[in-house]
Amino acid sequence: MKTALEAPPLGPILDDLVRYHRPQRESGSVPANIPFLAAVPFDKFGIAVATTSGKVFSSGDADIPFSIQSISKVFTLAMALRGDKSGTLWSRVLREPSGTSFNSLVQLEVEHGIPRNPFINAGALVVTDHLMEETSDAATQLLRFLTLEAGSAGPFIDEGAAASELSSSSRNLALAHFLKDFGNLKQPAESVVENYVRQCSIMMTCTELAQAGLFLAKEGRGRLRTVLSPSDAKRIGSIMLTCGMYDAAGEFAYRVGLPGKSGVGGGILVIVPGECAISVWSPRLDAKGNSLAGTAALADLSDRTGWSVF
Amino acid sequence: MKTALEAPPLGPILDDLVRYHRPQRESGSVPANIPFLAAVPFDKFGIAVATTSGKVFSSGDADIPFSIQSISKVFTLAMALRGDKSGTLWSRVLREPSGTSFNSLVQLEVEHGIPRNPFINAGALVVTDHLMEETSDAATQLLRFLTLEAGSAGPFIDEGAAASELSSSSRNLALAHFLKDFGNLKQPAESVVENYVRQCSIMMTCTELAQAGLFLAKEGRGRLRTVLSPSDAKRIGSIMLTCGMYDAAGEFAYRVGLPGKSGVGGGILVIVPGECAISVWSPRLDAKGNSLAGTAALADLSDRTGWSVF
Amino acid sequence: MKTALEAPPLGPILDDLVRYHRPQRESGSVPANIPFLAAVPFDKFGIAVATTSGKVFSSGDADIPFSIQSISKVFTLAMALRGDKSGTLWSRVLREPSGTSFNSLVQLEVEHGIPRNPFINAGALVVTDHLMEETSDAATQLLRFLTLEAGSAGPFIDEGAAASELSSSSRNLALAHFLKDFGNLKQPAESVVENYVRQCSIMMTCTELAQAGLFLAKEGRGRLRTVLSPSDAKRIGSIMLTCGMYDAAGEFAYRVGLPGKSGVGGGILVIVPGECAISVWSPRLDAKGNSLAGTAALADLSDRTGWSVF
Amino acid sequence: MKTALEAPPLGPILDDLVRYHRPQRESGSVPANIPFLAAVPFDKFGIAVATTSGKVFSSGDADIPFSIQSISKVFTLAMALRGDKSGTLWSRVLREPSGTSFNSLVQLEVEHGIPRNPFINAGALVVTDHLMEETSDAATQLLRFLTLEAGSAGPFIDEGAAASELSSSSRNLALAHFLKDFGNLKQPAESVVENYVRQCSIMMTCTELAQAGLFLAKEGRGRLRTVLSPSDAKRIGSIMLTCGMYDAAGEFAYRVGLPGKSGVGGGILVIVPGECAISVWSPRLDAKGNSLAGTAALADLSDRTGWSVF
Repeated sequence: MKTALEAPPLGPILDDLVRYHRPQRESGSVPANIPFLAAVPFDKFGIAVATTSGKVFSSGDADIPFSIQSISKVFTLAMALRGDKSGTLWSRVLREPSGTSFNSLVQLEVEHGIPRNPFINAGALVVTDHLMEETSDAATQLLRFLTLEAGSAGPFIDEGAAASELSSSSRNLALAHFLKDFGNLKQPAESVVENYVRQCSIMMTCTELAQAGLFLAKEGRGRLRTVLSPSDAKRIGSIMLTCGMYDAAGEFAYRVGLPGKSGVGGGILVIVPGECAISVWSPRLDAKGNSLAGTAALADLSDRTGWSVF
Repeated sequence: MKTALEAPPLGPILDDLVRYHRPQRESGSVPANIPFLAAVPFDKFGIAVATTSGKVFSSGDADIPFSIQSISKVFTLAMALRGDKSGTLWSRVLREPSGTSFNSLVQLEVEHGIPRNPFINAGALVVTDHLMEETSDAATQLLRFLTLEAGSAGPFIDEGAAASELSSSSRNLALAHFLKDFGNLKQPAESVVENYVRQCSIMMTCTELAQAGLFLAKEGRGRLRTVLSPSDAKRIGSIMLTCGMYDAAGEFAYRVGLPGKSGVGGGILVIVPGECAISVWSPRLDAKGNSLAGTAALADLSDRTGWSVF
Repeated sequence: MKTALEAPPLGPILDDLVRYHRPQRESGSVPANIPFLAAVPFDKFGIAVATTSGKVFSSGDADIPFSIQSISKVFTLAMALRGDKSGTLWSRVLREPSGTSFNSLVQLEVEHGIPRNPFINAGALVVTDHLMEETSDAATQLLRFLTLEAGSAGPFIDEGAAASELSSSSRNLALAHFLKDFGNLKQPAESVVENYVRQCSIMMTCTELAQAGLFLAKEGRGRLRTVLSPSDAKRIGSIMLTCGMYDAAGEFAYRVGLPGKSGVGGGILVIVPGECAISVWSPRLDAKGNSLAGTAALADLSDRTGWSVF
Repeated sequence: MKTALEAPPLGPILDDLVRYHRPQRESGSVPANIPFLAAVPFDKFGIAVATTSGKVFSSGDADIPFSIQSISKVFTLAMALRGDKSGTLWSRVLREPSGTSFNSLVQLEVEHGIPRNPFINAGALVVTDHLMEETSDAATQLLRFLTLEAGSAGPFIDEGAAASELSSSSRNLALAHFLKDFGNLKQPAESVVENYVRQCSIMMTCTELAQAGLFLAKEGRGRLRTVLSPSDAKRIGSIMLTCGMYDAAGEFAYRVGLPGKSGVGGGILVIVPGECAISVWSPRLDAKGNSLAGTAALADLSDRTGWSVF
């Protein structure tokens, strides 16, 4: 990895990425079961970098809020680890790649209700259930966390979108009831799914997201407080690298070479340990459910800056 | 198969079966997730035979009501086929043995939401959903059907038991939401599961059950009406033989050699085409979930009478 | 079931079936991996019935030899049960429907090397291995068995076809090595597969096949000797009914209502307990791998004669 | 990551690791199916580090040869990529974590014969098959590669061990025949497995292994030549991180935080990009098949040096 001294100037690079990667025409897909995501114009593209030295760079549509969807799983995991004094979380969810589609029930049945990792839907439901032991409104709790770390009052829950998504949440309800059947869900299945969906419906900008994720590049030190121990921050980074991109983790590890987490809203959060947090957003997805233009831009950025853990 | 003329007298045989097969001591298991079934004394044993010539024989606890549980699936299937003018039912559920445990989600995922047959839970939920297109209270409709065919006002829904079972129906709720996710459930998942559980909670005696099932031995002709076409009656018999005993269909086909359907309440309904319908009840179960004493008694009965389709 | 007295005359019925069911034009498929089977003219159609009273009826191409393929599994199972003094066979293979494609390794892995039944390829390999404990040339042993029961010197092993099929037996070799890995194969994997393939390559006519299978309709009594106990004959019948038609056992049980076993050579052997053995042959297959015209003719025959176990 | 300047002196650290991690008593397991590995004394422990600046540090049993087993997969992959002018390798094997046990056939069947990655056995067999297109003796070719990169004539194939292991290779033969059935193996299955087993049977010391793997820490530059492009070296690193430790990749990524590949002989090769290659060896294994003491020592080393990609 190149050191900060030899790194090229970020501002012009980000502008260049926007010029080169902003979609010129419709391409890729939208999530079939979430109508409001399909309505986002295909040519949106934003990128932001928050550095450990306190600077923020951005370009393109970096200040338009988008739906963070599964990127929320990184933050709910951080919150759950932060509060996990008893250390029980890791007995309820594993930390290994899943090898099957992100919402498969097969793996869950074969492994008797213990999800493979916190970033598949079943695992995220268990994390949410864990958070709900302290507060029934885990989604609002997450919103507070993001607001605090982003240093901005901008993030909000799109309750209309949440209600819409909740009405087509059969798969998540199936997962939640299945977890309950295995004794791995303590709150009512419907409440856990509702909280989960509201977490996914949080809207924030690239700039806010990069700032909110910066503690993961700073060994757990947040804007005003210690969010996590260095060990737990490292843990989250390793889970992002091995499990953060649905069934394309291996491909992303190669092309980008950095811990990342994507959402079907088209956002991706990436961590460069010790250097910065990066967020990118462009709504159209590839076959694995990751932002098409976003992934390409991150690979390009990795090549230009030399940022890579490999 | 021996003809009716050479058949031995049924009354003494049934008495003999009760003497020999009524459990002398606790053995076998009770369903872990349905507390009220566990409370039934282990030494209950009843048997009844209703013949196509109009006679009814019985012995033991043949007049004590028990919970029919999954035996209800035979009758809801008959009701659904009876009402299936449009012929859509068989596009929503297959007719092949499942080869996996009766409530597995794996098969359902691999086969994209089309259950393997109407006697696994997922298939029965689809059948119930199908019935609910005509009446939202499918369980009461089933009760009327059973009352009419049994020629007795005895059968009733144990609503307390249903409420108790409903409170631990996470697996069935998971199946129902999963079916809905695949577009193979039209009514709300919760309503379908509630109806399904209430159907399973119907209480009736061996005598009533044998009489209610007699139309299946009579090419579809019921007590006062034609219930099914001969073709549909034959269809149900073949599904009972290949899929009626959870994961022990092959073993039962060999030991008893007759179409049967069991329930975790310890009851089994068996059809001797052209001859009679047999019901047996004893509450303790074998490892596959079928009545331990009941299966043994039916094998014995098959040996003594020569009743077998093989 | 109608009694023999009221049964219509078989000769004219069989002629009628040939007129009606002999394929008029190419339709259905041929097994992709067995070239010589694809070369058989599509319009071949033969049928034969051997009755327990000693008569033989036939029509169409009933005296042209065809490749029995998986129908051989019925006879190797009979031979293995006949010789299984120690009763170990059933600890090495189950007797339940498989619910997945007939040569799937998944089920085998999940069930730790114990095949679901003797009619899927893995199960047949175990049966062959069992036979080879007594004689290394199990295929020739099977040929002797068939010759004796058919009362004809006609049956022969098509060694050229066997050699050809052996050269594309990767899937069966995979199954055999997998069984060996689980400790459920005693002979060398290559030898077992070779014997298995040679058994499948036996050529015989419909007339010979119906006569060879007659002992299964006669409670195990063969042409010159007792082949099996009534109990073992009944066992084979029940396995044929629940597992004999690949993944279409349920459908066949409904349409034909009789225990049957098919082969990808286009033959089907069917048993009417107490009445007769039926064989039919027509080379083109349906999507499940069963003879298209053969299955239709058997359904028609069942309707015309009333032969059905349901 | 700490820079080289602030790194503590390696020699004393390695000595300390040997003192602390060399097993004091029997613990962990040995591979059940490879007898000669079980014979290695449990208290062996060696470690070596080869730095990009050309230094080599070692301690403990670093000069005793051990069986590299699956670590060979890293080098055969490098050789295959080096020779893959046509770019066909990645159409025959994926690059994603497997999520199931390393020699499972289930995944292979579900994904139609395309292994999930080159480090599960099925994937390594495909890589070996790919190498054999250029030379039938791929194992000797690998030995030459290792000898050249290690700068030592020490490595050798333990032909006795290979013959022994080959005689119990049923699972690998099953995998190979299965791959062939899917058309994803060009050479005879037996030859591919033989080459694979001989590759696994290569014996080398920790010192030799660290030196042989150094090109992966140097963007593909080997001792005397360019082995791989920087891009391919990065690719191998990312596959090691996501797939290198059987079903414990996620755990290893967290505890050690570096790309690694283990073998059931108790060896582990780890890459610190830009810094060094590390090898450790201790024969007893944890439940996932990775060296018990070796993994612990690497986690300790990562903590002491700050070497981690996260």
